Amino acid sequence: MTTFKEKSFDYSILIVGDEILDGRRVDRHVHFITRTLQPFGLRCRRAVVVRDEFEVMRTSIENALAETRLVITTGGLGPTVDDVTREALSAATGISLRENPAVVEMIEERFRRLGREMTPNNRRQALTPEQGGFYPNDNGTAPGLVFDDGERIAIALPGPPRELEPLVTAQLIPHLSERLRLENRFSSLSLKLCCIGESNVDAAAERVLGKVDDLKISLLAQLGTVELTLTLAGEKEECEKRLKQYEHGLRLALGKFIYADREIALQAALGELLAAAGQTLAVAESCTGGMLGSWITETPGSSDYFAGGVIAYSNEVKQRDLGVAESTLEQFGAVSRETAVEMAEGVRKRFGTNWGVSITGVAGPGGGSAEKPVGTVWIAAAGESGTYPFKLSLTGDRDAVRHRSCVYALDQVRRLLAGIEPHA
Amino acid sequence: MTTFKEKSFDYSILIVGDEILDGRRVDRHVHFITRTLQPFGLRCRRAVVVRDEFEVMRTSIENALAETRLVITTGGLGPTVDDVTREALSAATGISLRENPAVVEMIEERFRRLGREMTPNNRRQALTPEQGGFYPNDNGTAPGLVFDDGERIAIALPGPPRELEPLVTAQLIPHLSERLRLENRFSSLSLKLCCIGESNVDAAAERVLGKVDDLKISLLAQLGTVELTLTLAGEKEECEKRLKQYEHGLRLALGKFIYADREIALQAALGELLAAAGQTLAVAESCTGGMLGSWITETPGSSDYFAGGVIAYSNEVKQRDLGVAESTLEQFGAVSRETAVEMAEGVRKRFGTNWGVSITGVAGPGGGSAEKPVGTVWIAAAGESGTYPFKLSLTGDRDAVRHRSCVYALDQVRRLLAGIEPHA
Repeated sequence: MTTFKEKSFDYSILIVGDEILDGRRVDRHVHFITRTLQPFGLRCRRAVVVRDEFEVMRTSIENALAETRLVITTGGLGPTVDDVTREALSAATGISLRENPAVVEMIEERFRRLGREMTPNNRRQALTPEQGGFYPNDNGTAPGLVFDDGERIAIALPGPPRELEPLVTAQLIPHLSERLRLENRFSSLSLKLCCIGESNVDAAAERVLGKVDDLKISLLAQLGTVELTLTLAGEKEECEKRLKQYEHGLRLALGKFIYADREIALQAALGELLAAAGQTLAVAESCTGGMLGSWITETPGSSDYFAGGVIAYSNEVKQRDLGVAESTLEQFGAVSRETAVEMAEGVRKRFGTNWGVSITGVAGPGGGSAEKPVGTVWIAAAGESGTYPFKLSLTGDRDAVRHRSCVYALDQVRRLLAGIEPHA
Repeated sequence: MTTFKEKSFDYSILIVGDEILDGRRVDRHVHFITRTLQPFGLRCRRAVVVRDEFEVMRTSIENALAETRLVITTGGLGPTVDDVTREALSAATGISLRENPAVVEMIEERFRRLGREMTPNNRRQALTPEQGGFYPNDNGTAPGLVFDDGERIAIALPGPPRELEPLVTAQLIPHLSERLRLENRFSSLSLKLCCIGESNVDAAAERVLGKVDDLKISLLAQLGTVELTLTLAGEKEECEKRLKQYEHGLRLALGKFIYADREIALQAALGELLAAAGQTLAVAESCTGGMLGSWITETPGSSDYFAGGVIAYSNEVKQRDLGVAESTLEQFGAVSRETAVEMAEGVRKRFGTNWGVSITGVAGPGGGSAEKPVGTVWIAAAGESGTYPFKLSLTGDRDAVRHRSCVYALDQVRRLLAGIEPHA
């Protein structure tokens, strides 16, 4: 069997998706796959979205395999005759399919567990390649399929994200690392930052790290957070030593913005800090309407540190349930330092938690004024040592304003817990 | 010059995007273009993302033009030599580029307006095809380019969404409608449904509509909601009459699940019902932790009908802030009909709203028991006429359980407001 000794390795992605080409769904698989495989030296050369038709699929796979020796397909592994990916892969690679008793057993077991009957159609999902293998799928009936003739590799993954994503991280990556001998050639370091712009991270990284020929720096920005990844190729120990040095320099320049050194959401990172400190949090939300609480409770086990909160969308609720003074609302308005402070302190007191955090702002598109334009948001975190309010002047649409407000609110509590200078 | 008389017309999309293939950005152009062109009978046959390299681009354009006579590219129209789209299109189509004085003038004017100097590089952006034309770009320096030899059409659009999107709607569509004579050939009808599975909608549509040769039925499912679209080609008045008949049949079979006959989110549709009735709503959320409130407040102007709510993540909050009896929690547990009812009635009373809606459930992955496994959710809506609780047994991960719970909670209020039999 041929192994691949290149330092980096090109591959193609083939997405089966009529619903994408009909404008009914945004593809996210290309992003997930490229981003997850990138650190392992796997470079996507081309991504193609095609319709679910046998001939189109077969020729597309053939063309892709002529260009790159590795092809990853997504979708088209369902139980019906409309799902042609597995047959198209078989035709394009010349590798036959055969019913696999182990997979039949897995599918039967899955149906038993769900208390449903397995249909004869589902037996098609038990077909696996005669050369290659399969990835068991814990979240669906179709296993991932590996067609591997020793020279060319084609891997078929099921379409639903909650099936595809675990297969990529838990099975495809270990498999390809082994198969392509790519493991340990790359060392990387990821830092997660928040409340700082991508271009500022970029500029700081350039200033701190200077020009290093073999260092690859990549940035991925999402609303309010940035992931900075450094990658080096070479001997593991040496690389890791250098990465530690780079990290040290980055922390000196950007320390207060760095909330984690691994892939983790800000709300989960804050949850870990709260749990470690044995402290609790409650929220008082106006313009975000529950989004902050919703984010915090995405994390399983968040009941250990999250008590709940008040969605104080109207001024009446701000007064009655959070104890904001009528005079405060009259004198300073609902979107003000004073109201944010009273909301945070009010929810902390009412819920008896260590921390209370509040958000009140003008999310738009209406409701803005010359003095308080759309995007004006006041946030406050109240704790034992005092209350820390700050103002944001955000740009973007309603969704962006609400989203960024939640990021800053979480970060204010994180900074206070971590002993970092708070937003002010 | 050849015109095209087909009823529908296939095209290809070519996205130039290293940052997409490196996992740094999610492509949204495919979605925008396909979705915007679809109603005009333009059907995307293939979408390809490639790297910004001349040879790759040239062969990709040639291959695409061999397959479909219309190709749309995005990106790679910048002023530097790295931007190769225009030269690749010229090479692939055999149509030369020539500096266009009208475009030079537009670019100069733009730079004057911004108070900046035009660089010599920018003159490359004034090159336009000798056969075809260009689309003036009000939001950037690069015009859209049309290469048209009378048989094959290749259109290059700039990459930034705020440049591309207006060019598509204001220039590409009128241009292609005229050029391809496609306007007004298609009529369609979309129904939005919730709390019903995609396969059930599919089966019902098949039963109601039978086999109609020229009717295209498409379904798009998202967690908890389904969009059903019927499309007919032909004379407008006749098509619309037939679509009305089909809609009538579908409403008889699926009426209670249909919440809108246009593209609108369930929370916005409910908001319209509440606003029309002059009624108000408050929420009491346990396992969803604020998600329901967050959804409702996505809609601008939701303060007209949404007062706020209580995130009652702990039992203590359920008692103190919602008035759930200690004995109820002890006897029936937090996830029970009785607790859901008391939460909904409690928040309605406390907030003085017409409606109170509650969600309490086991979102997982922990917290399940034999009696109340993960996915068990109780929901209740309390109104003037009484309180309507129901139980869900959901599958899927934490996010899916929380998401679907919100859909059902919104739908319970919608059904009660619309006089439809509630979930029970």
